[in-house]
Amino acid sequence: MKPPVINFSTLQSAVEITATLAFALSGLLAGARKQLDVVGLCIVAGLSAFGGGTLRDVLLDRRPFFWVEHADWLWALMGLCLAAMLFMRRRHLALTERAIQWPDALGLGLFTANGTLVALDAGMPAIVAVLMGVITATFGGVLRDIVCNEIPAAFHDHRPYALCSFVGAWVLVAAAALGWPQWATISAAAATAVALRGVALWTGWTLPVWRINKR
Amino acid sequence: MKPPVINFSTLQSAVEITATLAFALSGLLAGARKQLDVVGLCIVAGLSAFGGGTLRDVLLDRRPFFWVEHADWLWALMGLCLAAMLFMRRRHLALTERAIQWPDALGLGLFTANGTLVALDAGMPAIVAVLMGVITATFGGVLRDIVCNEIPAAFHDHRPYALCSFVGAWVLVAAAALGWPQWATISAAAATAVALRGVALWTGWTLPVWRINKR
Amino acid sequence: MKPPVINFSTLQSAVEITATLAFALSGLLAGARKQLDVVGLCIVAGLSAFGGGTLRDVLLDRRPFFWVEHADWLWALMGLCLAAMLFMRRRHLALTERAIQWPDALGLGLFTANGTLVALDAGMPAIVAVLMGVITATFGGVLRDIVCNEIPAAFHDHRPYALCSFVGAWVLVAAAALGWPQWATISAAAATAVALRGVALWTGWTLPVWRINKR
Repeated sequence: MKPPVINFSTLQSAVEITATLAFALSGLLAGARKQLDVVGLCIVAGLSAFGGGTLRDVLLDRRPFFWVEHADWLWALMGLCLAAMLFMRRRHLALTERAIQWPDALGLGLFTANGTLVALDAGMPAIVAVLMGVITATFGGVLRDIVCNEIPAAFHDHRPYALCSFVGAWVLVAAAALGWPQWATISAAAATAVALRGVALWTGWTLPVWRINKR
Repeated sequence: MKPPVINFSTLQSAVEITATLAFALSGLLAGARKQLDVVGLCIVAGLSAFGGGTLRDVLLDRRPFFWVEHADWLWALMGLCLAAMLFMRRRHLALTERAIQWPDALGLGLFTANGTLVALDAGMPAIVAVLMGVITATFGGVLRDIVCNEIPAAFHDHRPYALCSFVGAWVLVAAAALGWPQWATISAAAATAVALRGVALWTGWTLPVWRINKR
Repeated sequence: MKPPVINFSTLQSAVEITATLAFALSGLLAGARKQLDVVGLCIVAGLSAFGGGTLRDVLLDRRPFFWVEHADWLWALMGLCLAAMLFMRRRHLALTERAIQWPDALGLGLFTANGTLVALDAGMPAIVAVLMGVITATFGGVLRDIVCNEIPAAFHDHRPYALCSFVGAWVLVAAAALGWPQWATISAAAATAVALRGVALWTGWTLPVWRINKR
């Protein structure tokens, strides 16, 4: 009997599950802060996890959606929300918030690469493909914040988040134009976005403030 | 001369009109509370009445929308909004709010059944069909609340609303799997959701609060 | 050598560019007021400029979007946002706000005419085509306000904005039904909406207040 082969796509699946989980948890935390009920929690967690990719697919007119093709994930999401309601305590909140920063950065990178690639395959021009990558990676969080009645953090907190995704998406476009194999383009793009986001988290780097807004 | 036959689909149409009206009125009331102008009132009433079904159809990639096929309803909606602006007085507000709870419950049931059935017919897996039923029944109100700059009541007021729709949608999926005739599956699903919502209204039942959010 | 011919469509392009710019600037100003960062500014400016037409195309199931077919505009938009961040000072803000009212009125007229025409060509009934014209002209601003966590000004400020678009759209439907040539229908519709908006700006005309909302 052969040992199971850990190939690139198994690894990618593992990272993707971790990342989607991190996105869903970010929705859970936002919902808890706003004292949503169980229905609101499930919807906001689902929007955070799948909203970006779904919006991209609506814009690109692609079907089926990820969560239609893999409907099991909807069950997993509901299970996660119920488990959180049963087992999570107040002291876990801050801990979770800190702990998900890193899988969230992974998700940012991987969703960027995936979203840009899908748009390139659909024949989009480079700048549109980059925009689709950024939408895939960040609009789950944007929809989460709109439903929670907040200005989206990605537009407002002056920390580089969408910008890391933007740079990573251009790396993918460049690598694809150079004819790199797919695993290499995805890895390079995702790694760039994750590394930039990691540096931003590590150093507390903030975006320059528009002089009009200086306080 | 034969008396007019009241068959299932005539009855269904009557219930549907009543329910759509109740949804539109809930939009009108929300708009009045936010002091919207005549344009805002019409749009918010329209979003409340047709937003859920339209979002479902965008996600399922179905056309034409209900309000394109039956464009007369748009006229009726505008007429309703103008009539409300002319004839409604402040003392009517609380009255209307109480009075629409019951047709609104009817709408919840019927739109759930209809939305779930449409998604099943489009070949969606059970859990996705249920989600589409819930979206059809509740996202009109969610869009209404987002436009009115509120956290959606369906996610926040800790009263069972989407949950009644969720249970009703599963009844439809089960009845369809058992091969019941269509009128029976629709009736059973709608009746379940309406009855649950009625009990919830009657008893003031609230959803359990997540311990993190206990005040 | 012949002088360059200024024909209708060259003129239309010039007006369209001016109008899109005005819409983008309205997004920039709203973003500045909310102290968004550079990413937020670009997205909100883009939503204001292209959101209405994109929503119309999603509802009508039309592809490609304007900003996919003319991807250069995305570069222009980013350039505009960066230039604004570098060169705009606080004292420019009020000036810009006053200065864009007139190109914004142009945009209202032109986008109304264009949106209604596209919907008529897609075989929509008159009232739906009118609604699509209004959505094209006003929902960029609506999405801008939703993202900025405000009740949309078009629904709330009791000034005729969507209403001018509504009347202009009916002019287009009537002219098209009378068999006017396309340049005449577009011109008549756009001129009506622009003129109404101009009069509304000039006279400070406000919509009647619903008695329920009288303060």
